[in-house]
Amino acid sequence: MNLFSKVSRTAGKNSPLEEEVRKLPVPVNSVFLGKDGRIEPAEFRQTDMTLGSKGHERIEQVFPETSAKNGSAILEAVVAGGSRGTAGKRVAVLFSGGPAAGGHNVLVGLAAVLGKDNTLLGVRKGPGGLVKGDLFEIDRRSVSSIMNMGGFDFLGTDRTKIKTAEQFEKVKQTVVKNRLDGLVVVGGDDSNTNAAFIAEHLEKEGVRCSVIGVPKTIDGDLAAGKYLPIPFGFDTATKIYAELVGNLTQDAASAVKYYHFVKLMGRTASKITLEVALQTKPAVALISEEIAEKNMSLEAIVDHIARIITLRRLNGLNHGVILVPEGLVEFIPEMGRLIAELNKVLVEYATDIADLPSLEHKREFLFPHLTAQSAQVMASLPPDLQETLILDRDDHGNVKVSQIETEKLLIEKIRYRLSEMKRHTDRFFGREEGKIEASAQQVEDFKKVSLSVQSHFLGYEGRCSKPSRFDAAFTFQLGMAAGSLVLSGKTGYMAAVTDFHKGGRVLALPLTGLISTEMRGGKEEFVIKRSLVELSSPSFRLYAENRDRWAREDCFSSPGAIQYWGPTCRQVSMLVALDQEYPDFASFDLGEEKQVLVE
Amino acid sequence: MNLFSKVSRTAGKNSPLEEEVRKLPVPVNSVFLGKDGRIEPAEFRQTDMTLGSKGHERIEQVFPETSAKNGSAILEAVVAGGSRGTAGKRVAVLFSGGPAAGGHNVLVGLAAVLGKDNTLLGVRKGPGGLVKGDLFEIDRRSVSSIMNMGGFDFLGTDRTKIKTAEQFEKVKQTVVKNRLDGLVVVGGDDSNTNAAFIAEHLEKEGVRCSVIGVPKTIDGDLAAGKYLPIPFGFDTATKIYAELVGNLTQDAASAVKYYHFVKLMGRTASKITLEVALQTKPAVALISEEIAEKNMSLEAIVDHIARIITLRRLNGLNHGVILVPEGLVEFIPEMGRLIAELNKVLVEYATDIADLPSLEHKREFLFPHLTAQSAQVMASLPPDLQETLILDRDDHGNVKVSQIETEKLLIEKIRYRLSEMKRHTDRFFGREEGKIEASAQQVEDFKKVSLSVQSHFLGYEGRCSKPSRFDAAFTFQLGMAAGSLVLSGKTGYMAAVTDFHKGGRVLALPLTGLISTEMRGGKEEFVIKRSLVELSSPSFRLYAENRDRWAREDCFSSPGAIQYWGPTCRQVSMLVALDQEYPDFASFDLGEEKQVLVE
Repeated sequence: MNLFSKVSRTAGKNSPLEEEVRKLPVPVNSVFLGKDGRIEPAEFRQTDMTLGSKGHERIEQVFPETSAKNGSAILEAVVAGGSRGTAGKRVAVLFSGGPAAGGHNVLVGLAAVLGKDNTLLGVRKGPGGLVKGDLFEIDRRSVSSIMNMGGFDFLGTDRTKIKTAEQFEKVKQTVVKNRLDGLVVVGGDDSNTNAAFIAEHLEKEGVRCSVIGVPKTIDGDLAAGKYLPIPFGFDTATKIYAELVGNLTQDAASAVKYYHFVKLMGRTASKITLEVALQTKPAVALISEEIAEKNMSLEAIVDHIARIITLRRLNGLNHGVILVPEGLVEFIPEMGRLIAELNKVLVEYATDIADLPSLEHKREFLFPHLTAQSAQVMASLPPDLQETLILDRDDHGNVKVSQIETEKLLIEKIRYRLSEMKRHTDRFFGREEGKIEASAQQVEDFKKVSLSVQSHFLGYEGRCSKPSRFDAAFTFQLGMAAGSLVLSGKTGYMAAVTDFHKGGRVLALPLTGLISTEMRGGKEEFVIKRSLVELSSPSFRLYAENRDRWAREDCFSSPGAIQYWGPTCRQVSMLVALDQEYPDFASFDLGEEKQVLVE
Repeated sequence: MNLFSKVSRTAGKNSPLEEEVRKLPVPVNSVFLGKDGRIEPAEFRQTDMTLGSKGHERIEQVFPETSAKNGSAILEAVVAGGSRGTAGKRVAVLFSGGPAAGGHNVLVGLAAVLGKDNTLLGVRKGPGGLVKGDLFEIDRRSVSSIMNMGGFDFLGTDRTKIKTAEQFEKVKQTVVKNRLDGLVVVGGDDSNTNAAFIAEHLEKEGVRCSVIGVPKTIDGDLAAGKYLPIPFGFDTATKIYAELVGNLTQDAASAVKYYHFVKLMGRTASKITLEVALQTKPAVALISEEIAEKNMSLEAIVDHIARIITLRRLNGLNHGVILVPEGLVEFIPEMGRLIAELNKVLVEYATDIADLPSLEHKREFLFPHLTAQSAQVMASLPPDLQETLILDRDDHGNVKVSQIETEKLLIEKIRYRLSEMKRHTDRFFGREEGKIEASAQQVEDFKKVSLSVQSHFLGYEGRCSKPSRFDAAFTFQLGMAAGSLVLSGKTGYMAAVTDFHKGGRVLALPLTGLISTEMRGGKEEFVIKRSLVELSSPSFRLYAENRDRWAREDCFSSPGAIQYWGPTCRQVSMLVALDQEYPDFASFDLGEEKQVLVE
């Protein structure tokens, strides 16, 4: 074959790396190993570990069937007594929400435990496809093509929220029409809440179908302490972001003139930012949870960063990297209040505002409806951002927070602050408390240097990579766990794996134990509480203890690109290793690795 | 050591990957191997290969000393006859221009051939540091810490262009004061032109100092056909961009709703975009050289992309990836003319324009000074872009082309075109030539779907990665070649390596043979002609032959993250393998690999 053909033939995921990665072995937890060394479904037994949560009585009212059936006990997988018994079962699987690396291995794990005697079906394009009944039977041979491959493209995904009675009826029809014995929902907190409602609805309707959730979200906020340290996708996404941020820290120190402001995905939890900070040691990493807890205003944040930039400059460094979590703006108290007020006004006066002919008219209309404090905050924002806040709305008419360019807001405010510091050096430099100590010469040098900034947003690049060895291994166990739960007739559980450092432990968490109630805008909502960065956690404490040094000096390091081979390919995230109190982050252990062939 | 300490101690480039990568072996070309298997400087002999270029007589006038001394013959490295002979030589090295992966291994290669008996000095912060005389002696032990590490941070870099007599005098003083026997300039086309002028100046002044260039630029545009297939940095940068674009193609097909518009670094040559396209098979990749050669207008480009988006939609695909080279806008004929006219007017009337109080006044002043055609083009651009064209200027008062958000201009125009197609379907759909054939139902479906876009700029992330195995190997040879050239008293050469597929061949290219003259704005300029994408090259032809299929269907693939171990870690870029007519791209061969220890 000549080179022209060799290059052309890499199309369709046939690059040399893709061909090799597909063949990589994955661990198989001993609970899934039959006596002949082949993969078998596990059984689940009750443990004395339980999950409880706020408003439990209310949960029992809303989920009477599944909460009565499952109680609050966590199940643990054990080797099944007999040989593979079940046959003729039909199990469908869907992806929900944003893609995350490893989703395809959930399918491979499912196919592996279901074996040839049961049927795996795929739901096209997420929960929306489930409502429409868009299912297809998965050819077992095609499963080997997605082994260790990234993305959700084998099925597609969407963000349909199943809420109405009509939707639940349609889901039931899909289940009945396709004679499904099981439905596996791969998704985040909302999708797993969806799964809990579907499980309850089918039980109530007397339709026997096991509904099982699989925890996915790159943000890392769907977790359950020691029972589920992290959902899948976080490890791969943070490895990619840390590779790139690592490169930018190195670039900053090489070109010696830029501050790189990097916005990182993570609407609620700042776990991604924290992990990337631990991996790369940037000059600044803002953690939303800390800002909310310490009630830091936008001005205080700007002060903090401008001070670090100044101290670095006095220290001879005119470059660095500043990490900003995507969801920051809602955690800044006065901004959060402004957005909440705007949401209320924008929805309440939706038609009035829509009728007003220009942005200026809309602004004039809005200001009197805000509190004085929020009006002042709004007026102090750059015009572009005011426009975004007023005009860009999501499907519920609310402010589209993801459109807010927080990093650019910070850059603008920091620029202004630094120019103020140059013009009024006496206000900012001196021996008094709160001022920065510097010699006259240092102050003169400070005045000479300008701030050169590059801004970046790292998001989509991290969702669809080929999974890290960890995520590939983790998702394969999750898939086998979900398949085993279906085959043993369980419903309303989320598959989980823990103890990544010593062989892995496969669990099933009752979904009703994860769900709690919250009042949102006067309405009761059922939610799985998001797992946020805790300021008392080892991971945050390590960052907090080191950050002053990382701010003053160039301490950067980088985990580098995701490796599939070699001495570092099995690293787990530092956040998980620290918070789960593992002895090391160098290597995970999820069981003996095997070449998996789904035939 | 507990985990807290283990994580903290990764600071300062001590991540597990960094520690392991530092220990990776690199090849040593046989010309650098002494009888005892240790690294020795090579000797260089004349070959019958020559480099000539346009305006050669003029070059001989401007570079009388070096062109007489070196002629046009390319030198080739051979094993030195005797043992290491030279001692007491002092050699300085500097980085110039934007960082590129592998720079540090040039230093390691230099240190290795210089051995303990000669001295290696570093110039801080680029050519600017050379003018200032900011040099330091490199501690040999510190060299092992930068082995295989990314970035230019060991020395820093800048973009000072050495042009004035005063600057040349200061460079001479630096050379004399530091008793330099050699000066190695690691940089792109401008920096190597600089090196040629410095070499000439020192010869003329009777200062014996070897000035040697080392070819660096991530854009890949400093190349010399079969004598130098590519400069260093291109391989690593394109591997990172291809990893990320590969992830985005996968993301597009998973989320099934976005077009990702990705702007890729590359101001002049579109080689980066072409390589990334060959690696990932996106829906569209614009190649600046093709657009210029085919005289495609902005409208024609918008038509082309809107047509592909429409055909994909008819084909059931509402997602994809579109690659846009950073320098595109100057290659669009009417935009190039507009920018040229603006540059002339902005410089000629600089003070008038500066005096005008508002952007509107400046616009009013400018329009009558443009040709009617350019005025029309200017007026048809979005207001933001007009503002950038008028207000953002570089140091020479010219339009700051890098500030032009070409991808956003395209997105805006494509959005408008698609909405036009929806409103006037009869103009765009039908059986007539040039129209798109579609059924009535397809046209109705087309009208229902809107365009969701995410835009990205991939640039800085790719400059400072740890070098790919290829770039690590390539730069180590370049460093050993540059060091050998200095020790053998050559001046005015650029180190080069070729034949990446069969052991590597080490050459020295006379800089005067690379330089040609160009008239720019009525002034004669000496430049190394940039190596662009040739439409007749195998790499472009392969893309051109496949792109219709890649546009219509999802054919994406991805080389994945840069690997340092495993079966795919030695890949060379497809562009190089194709255009150099290598039999494969799977693995480079630059000689036997050795664990290099600089002591």
